[in-house]
Amino acid sequence: MMDRGQAYGDGLFETMRAHRGTLPWWDAHWTRLARGCERLAIALPDQAQVRANADALLPDGGDAVLKLLVIRGGGARGYAPPVDAPSNWQLERHPLPAPATGGLRLRWCDTRIAVQPLLAGIKHCNRLEQVLARAECVAADADEGLVRDTDGHVVSATSANVFVFRDGAWSTPPLQRCGVAGTCRAALMAPLRAQEALMDVAAVESADAVFLCNAVRGILPVASLGARSWPSHPAVAAARRVLATLHPGLVPELE
Amino acid sequence: MMDRGQAYGDGLFETMRAHRGTLPWWDAHWTRLARGCERLAIALPDQAQVRANADALLPDGGDAVLKLLVIRGGGARGYAPPVDAPSNWQLERHPLPAPATGGLRLRWCDTRIAVQPLLAGIKHCNRLEQVLARAECVAADADEGLVRDTDGHVVSATSANVFVFRDGAWSTPPLQRCGVAGTCRAALMAPLRAQEALMDVAAVESADAVFLCNAVRGILPVASLGARSWPSHPAVAAARRVLATLHPGLVPELE
Repeated sequence: MMDRGQAYGDGLFETMRAHRGTLPWWDAHWTRLARGCERLAIALPDQAQVRANADALLPDGGDAVLKLLVIRGGGARGYAPPVDAPSNWQLERHPLPAPATGGLRLRWCDTRIAVQPLLAGIKHCNRLEQVLARAECVAADADEGLVRDTDGHVVSATSANVFVFRDGAWSTPPLQRCGVAGTCRAALMAPLRAQEALMDVAAVESADAVFLCNAVRGILPVASLGARSWPSHPAVAAARRVLATLHPGLVPELE
Repeated sequence: MMDRGQAYGDGLFETMRAHRGTLPWWDAHWTRLARGCERLAIALPDQAQVRANADALLPDGGDAVLKLLVIRGGGARGYAPPVDAPSNWQLERHPLPAPATGGLRLRWCDTRIAVQPLLAGIKHCNRLEQVLARAECVAADADEGLVRDTDGHVVSATSANVFVFRDGAWSTPPLQRCGVAGTCRAALMAPLRAQEALMDVAAVESADAVFLCNAVRGILPVASLGARSWPSHPAVAAARRVLATLHPGLVPELE
């Protein structure tokens, strides 16, 4: 029996990093999930039930990745969303990804992200654009890729937000038109005094330093982007030390 | 265990009308599915296996709707598409929808469709825009809704293509930038001598007649669109007679 996740990608997800059996950013993830549920009129699951299930997946006090998937309930024949159907949700535990062994080698993806303000910011399950963009990176043997929207503005990496350092200040693309408002990005904005700024290719390539970030891997320094390369930069190292104070699991994978 | 359909809407579907136990447009549906699989690099299932399964769902020689869902195989953690993973597919039989009892009452949806040429035309499973647009129609007690893209061009209805009659000729919006290339639309283009044409709101509202069409319900005359209304038009009746020669199940539901 098909569900609305399979049929339409009619759901939302969160990917959380557990540290010693705890979920330091639970509140931030739940807040974003609730915002997504409100935007799509999907019933928000009972937080206490989900949390109890999450805790039960971490009995060993270990480090892990927890993925929460929330799918709109009701039948999958027809786009009309069933009214008042409780959501179906699942949690899965996965091992931590292997630590990066150096700065990331990026490419500019040919795949563009469509401009859709109705879906921007939330972590919904319509992710074919990211699948296509990621497939490009794999084919080109790049660690990750930066994606632009169909108007040419830089959005993010395929599964991480991007921060750019220039003239002593951090900036990151706005996400009102497309892209995902990452929890790690949100946590870093104020401590790094980062500003949102529209960026084109030249704005990134002429930066003094670049990093990617997400809630699973923290801050990942960028070593190269196509032909452009960057040496290690003290501003990135400083940002990683800041992040370690915000999530004890997101200590630098390398110095 | 999450699959890539639930996680990312990473799949394709076809919705077919069975007539007396046969699937008159099987080839057209399979051709579109194959095109979608090629575009997304999803493994095309074995046609003979799927067809045998479809036939097994129609042992009574009855009329029905068959929905085929094809989901990319492999794991759902991470956007990168697994290489060479066989697809997972499912077929479901559903009853025919209730016949329309009159021309459809439409609205203009506020939900806009994002411009994404990489996903245009194929029947992929990233359908949150259609879910949102359809929810609007339900809330407004409209039978269906016309959607425009983010540039203001008319695309289609939420689950049907749209044809417009003006000065003795049929036209329908192009689908190179967004929208689904419907099998019923494709079947009608040549017999109706229809042309593709960019349309705005005024172009539809000032038409002499309008119909929607899809592979399950055939041609559905439009009676109203917001404040605009249309009486029955002989060109629509003629188009329905043409369609009945192309798919014996798609005879007019009303005259």
